[in-house]
Amino acid sequence: MDKKIEVGILGATGTVGQRFIQLLEGHPWFEVAWLGASDRSAGKRYAEATAWQLDTPIPARIAEMTVAECTPGAGPQLAFSSMAGTQAGEIEEAFARSGHFVVSNSSHFRMAEDVPLLVPEINPEHLALLAVQRKNRGWSGAIVTNPNCAAMVLVMPLAAWKAFGVNRVLASTLQAASGAGYPGVPSLDILGNVIPYIGGDEEGKFARETVKILGALSPDGERIEPLPAQVAANCHRVPVIDGHMVTASVGFEAPPPLPDLARALDVFSGRPQERNLPSAPARPIHRTEALDRPQPRRDAGAGSGMATTVGRLRPCPILGVRFTALSHNVIRGAAGAAILNAELIHAENLL
Amino acid sequence: MDKKIEVGILGATGTVGQRFIQLLEGHPWFEVAWLGASDRSAGKRYAEATAWQLDTPIPARIAEMTVAECTPGAGPQLAFSSMAGTQAGEIEEAFARSGHFVVSNSSHFRMAEDVPLLVPEINPEHLALLAVQRKNRGWSGAIVTNPNCAAMVLVMPLAAWKAFGVNRVLASTLQAASGAGYPGVPSLDILGNVIPYIGGDEEGKFARETVKILGALSPDGERIEPLPAQVAANCHRVPVIDGHMVTASVGFEAPPPLPDLARALDVFSGRPQERNLPSAPARPIHRTEALDRPQPRRDAGAGSGMATTVGRLRPCPILGVRFTALSHNVIRGAAGAAILNAELIHAENLL
Amino acid sequence: MDKKIEVGILGATGTVGQRFIQLLEGHPWFEVAWLGASDRSAGKRYAEATAWQLDTPIPARIAEMTVAECTPGAGPQLAFSSMAGTQAGEIEEAFARSGHFVVSNSSHFRMAEDVPLLVPEINPEHLALLAVQRKNRGWSGAIVTNPNCAAMVLVMPLAAWKAFGVNRVLASTLQAASGAGYPGVPSLDILGNVIPYIGGDEEGKFARETVKILGALSPDGERIEPLPAQVAANCHRVPVIDGHMVTASVGFEAPPPLPDLARALDVFSGRPQERNLPSAPARPIHRTEALDRPQPRRDAGAGSGMATTVGRLRPCPILGVRFTALSHNVIRGAAGAAILNAELIHAENLL
Amino acid sequence: MDKKIEVGILGATGTVGQRFIQLLEGHPWFEVAWLGASDRSAGKRYAEATAWQLDTPIPARIAEMTVAECTPGAGPQLAFSSMAGTQAGEIEEAFARSGHFVVSNSSHFRMAEDVPLLVPEINPEHLALLAVQRKNRGWSGAIVTNPNCAAMVLVMPLAAWKAFGVNRVLASTLQAASGAGYPGVPSLDILGNVIPYIGGDEEGKFARETVKILGALSPDGERIEPLPAQVAANCHRVPVIDGHMVTASVGFEAPPPLPDLARALDVFSGRPQERNLPSAPARPIHRTEALDRPQPRRDAGAGSGMATTVGRLRPCPILGVRFTALSHNVIRGAAGAAILNAELIHAENLL
Repeated sequence: MDKKIEVGILGATGTVGQRFIQLLEGHPWFEVAWLGASDRSAGKRYAEATAWQLDTPIPARIAEMTVAECTPGAGPQLAFSSMAGTQAGEIEEAFARSGHFVVSNSSHFRMAEDVPLLVPEINPEHLALLAVQRKNRGWSGAIVTNPNCAAMVLVMPLAAWKAFGVNRVLASTLQAASGAGYPGVPSLDILGNVIPYIGGDEEGKFARETVKILGALSPDGERIEPLPAQVAANCHRVPVIDGHMVTASVGFEAPPPLPDLARALDVFSGRPQERNLPSAPARPIHRTEALDRPQPRRDAGAGSGMATTVGRLRPCPILGVRFTALSHNVIRGAAGAAILNAELIHAENLL
Repeated sequence: MDKKIEVGILGATGTVGQRFIQLLEGHPWFEVAWLGASDRSAGKRYAEATAWQLDTPIPARIAEMTVAECTPGAGPQLAFSSMAGTQAGEIEEAFARSGHFVVSNSSHFRMAEDVPLLVPEINPEHLALLAVQRKNRGWSGAIVTNPNCAAMVLVMPLAAWKAFGVNRVLASTLQAASGAGYPGVPSLDILGNVIPYIGGDEEGKFARETVKILGALSPDGERIEPLPAQVAANCHRVPVIDGHMVTASVGFEAPPPLPDLARALDVFSGRPQERNLPSAPARPIHRTEALDRPQPRRDAGAGSGMATTVGRLRPCPILGVRFTALSHNVIRGAAGAAILNAELIHAENLL
Repeated sequence: MDKKIEVGILGATGTVGQRFIQLLEGHPWFEVAWLGASDRSAGKRYAEATAWQLDTPIPARIAEMTVAECTPGAGPQLAFSSMAGTQAGEIEEAFARSGHFVVSNSSHFRMAEDVPLLVPEINPEHLALLAVQRKNRGWSGAIVTNPNCAAMVLVMPLAAWKAFGVNRVLASTLQAASGAGYPGVPSLDILGNVIPYIGGDEEGKFARETVKILGALSPDGERIEPLPAQVAANCHRVPVIDGHMVTASVGFEAPPPLPDLARALDVFSGRPQERNLPSAPARPIHRTEALDRPQPRRDAGAGSGMATTVGRLRPCPILGVRFTALSHNVIRGAAGAAILNAELIHAENLL
Repeated sequence: MDKKIEVGILGATGTVGQRFIQLLEGHPWFEVAWLGASDRSAGKRYAEATAWQLDTPIPARIAEMTVAECTPGAGPQLAFSSMAGTQAGEIEEAFARSGHFVVSNSSHFRMAEDVPLLVPEINPEHLALLAVQRKNRGWSGAIVTNPNCAAMVLVMPLAAWKAFGVNRVLASTLQAASGAGYPGVPSLDILGNVIPYIGGDEEGKFARETVKILGALSPDGERIEPLPAQVAANCHRVPVIDGHMVTASVGFEAPPPLPDLARALDVFSGRPQERNLPSAPARPIHRTEALDRPQPRRDAGAGSGMATTVGRLRPCPILGVRFTALSHNVIRGAAGAAILNAELIHAENLL
């Protein structure tokens, strides 16, 4: 690659925006050329505008960049978005209308009928919606989204088992504090404590997004037919920095033998591995037979934060099979997911 | 009460033994008169023999008592046991054979056919097994047990709903570090981390004990017929000091309306409340409609640690209804449970 | 006491305001009759206006009270204040001008020359400033303050040693998250972490307040002559809920023998103990010889949160003597301190 | 380098032993060829013998190696030691006597008169003691040690300031749980808590080692003359995984201006940087002007865990200057320190 592709970041000063910057530093294809944030931050040096959280320093070049307002048309064509809140949808739409390809981690468009909710290992064919999206909306640009950080954990093993006819999923999540951004969860709420609730309809997002991600493109190519499965999640916040854990029981039309399920996890692979995308983990799923794994502090970094670790696979007397899965909520569940999406989009010449 | 009943404590130096001492200080009926522990501790002053963990000081009188070996026959007739490990069963049996009434928090005898697994609000009629136990075993004493600290959380709401025909329970637990005793869980394993596994067959105990506790005395009064329900639990250790949380989905033969289930929790009450036992909470179940409760740090102390808090009651698309329950694992789930058992036994003139 | 004295709370919805309510519930002299907070909260039921943090429930009567605006003249004559931020000074002053006796936990007036920075065990004679204050300012009411929560920890042992001629103090603090209020410290900053800095010039407050508290009323009774000692503090925030720890080295004009220092701690007592004030701890200082105490989770509750625990007393090769002290930052260091101040003021007929 | 130098590890299954393995994986000069541990572990596969704690997996080749008994003569000439407990000294001595060059993280020999307590940036000339050691003891091998993990934090800035005549140091440490090894600190002692004490005479080690490290080789080259400074430390354990923080006040014979002290930190460098040793950080000291840094979770990894971060440099009204320093206790304070020592020894042709 002679010259890197310039990218912008909408919402560059937040928790996920910082991860975009960290993960894109030294990226072989992309180069951060533009940083957008709220009006409050615009005009400041990035180092002043952000409260940097990560354990690697702000890259020197980025620290000196000036933060811009999120004015459509500004910045490179390829824009990563980690905007939060109510205005995210409007801004992303304005950027897409004015020609930007928005690769978004926000929740606003995930469930829109003509917007791919893309997990490159699972549903690259959903990118066919892009043509529909442009036709429907008259945009010169486009929007592609990645899943909610908790849903992301579970869709990977479910995808590996899709052929076995998953029809019921009952999940319990133990989610890290970083999932709430910064300042996010007050320490008085979570030190030595657990909260059995996550706002923003987290449980609804989990259920809806899971069946869309695992769904099939309709015969006319115009929409996604969701996986016909019942999914429910009970979400908990735990005093962990990074790494969402999901313990789930899964029902099947015809329950397969456990060894078949284990093997399906072990051999699971997809388009990012075929195309050897820069951010693709060598194996999307790391299966462990250690009794007490996965654990967030020890396993969230698997595959540079892009792999999902699955353990405790065993029969469930109620639904069929149960297990615990874990991945890094800010990497595989947010910034890393969006970057992998952009890599696939570039590799498939859709930019 | 003219004179208090003297009690002994088997395993007085451990986490639960310390709680026995704390909770029995100032008890209106019982008075600690004898402390037994391992040979390593025997002969020492209690204050030297134990690594006191609690945030109230060792009662002065107890601090000066000399710890004895656990020799059957020694100590008062009524003995609380919080012994751990493989020798617990042998010692408890020897004490019961030599005439002691052993009120045990240990797991050894919980599933024995002729041993009550007693929760006074739920199954006081199981005490009828005591006659069978004495007949079977030829003991002059007896053994009564209380449940595993995680099972204890869930049986309370399940008992309130027993009339509705509970037939399936899928539970996910978030358990406090104190459940593992002292030194218990190493800090390097649990600081900023979650472990999706608890040793000692915790999940098996949860499932088996739940259906025994909720079971019915057989017509011949010789055994407990377990509740005919499928129960499964996925256990997690979380960085919390005290308070086990259980989020569960429950299936019913004929799913009742949610308001009926809520009312059943609100009105639930039992023998300890009728008899106004000293350690009985005024209401065994505290139901909350706060979206983000119960929480261990804020709710474990409800009803002086003897009440179970239930929140997030809502429909479950997979099994019927779901909710989160919490109680104090060392009080309601261990020492307090045993003390309440002893209070019932005394009140029913079974000592 | 025939009838209780009605009190108001300025800033009733914050962390310290909640503690006022918790500690005043069942108080033998005072009764909460008025709750003031920001305009945002005014008009709401208290239960709606506050995010209650404590592990005891909101008293039912208080939950239903309507929060008022902080309009001078409103509410009872005796007003506790836990207002934060820039407007605290203005509001407290307006209340004092309009006749209220303001017993404040805020920092605004602590260093004002004519305002007592009162610790009843240490400097009850500083109340003589009240006459000066009224004369100077023409107020019909008055303001009395209590110390910063970290300074509070150390002044107690220093007061016990005042006769020995303390002249240098070098302190290192480990402060709990509750000291920053709610939402306060973001969990991403403090989970598994330590921050060697506390904003709001905490170190300056510590140094200045310490020498004022330990100072003497000037011969003309018009001001406090600070203790002529050099004091420096290095403040750290640690992942603890409640309980500020201070490890300090102290220099003396003529270093006394350690046993004399120990005895001085053991016998230290003051006006609250003489007058048997309702919130006075039986002994202001609990000295421990346990090697590894005090600890916040185990000792912050000493004396119902009103005692200071001092341990690790030993020689310091640099300054003379060193030790670790700890007290509850929201009780002895805030709400409890103000209540004890009000009790003294009432007992001395100064209301 | 044609062929790597084989190394052994004494105490390979502990917390520091695991770090040796992690840090030596892919080392350009050294290759782990032998693993020694207690008799209990000997004969087992390494993966079975150890409870691996780290967030990178056990290198596959190492996992399959068989753990050996620590029999002198066994294993390669160069042996890293992370043995703990009373037998460490005996075993290390036996290995040195039988010809091994023991690069030890244990405390046993640190204060021995003829054993270098080596920090390559600070006192490489102390290696002259090796000739004395061999002469005195008749060993064919040798022992070199690295400092206590808390002392290590402070000696780096003190060395940068040695020319200014440091004469008094009063330090307060906030030490991570990993410093106590595994299982180490029980979670019930440290979750939401702080312990103002660390066993094993930590404070004494800190004081004694600091002045030896900063000391000068005596004119006859036979011993180290300690720095003539008074040093005292107050040690605290905090709920942090990795990273020891030390806040200290320092006195000087002639207090230099702060900018001179800052510059001395910025330009500090030593033999490892000159020789470009593989584990040497580019700059031994990272100075920060951020008000709230260093922090263990964000700064322990500086310079791949080999740099010391210094912040909050400011005047101290008691001693002269104060600041906060931090480094990774298991890397710079243990395994990484020993590896850097071995690199220097190899580079200086002393093996």
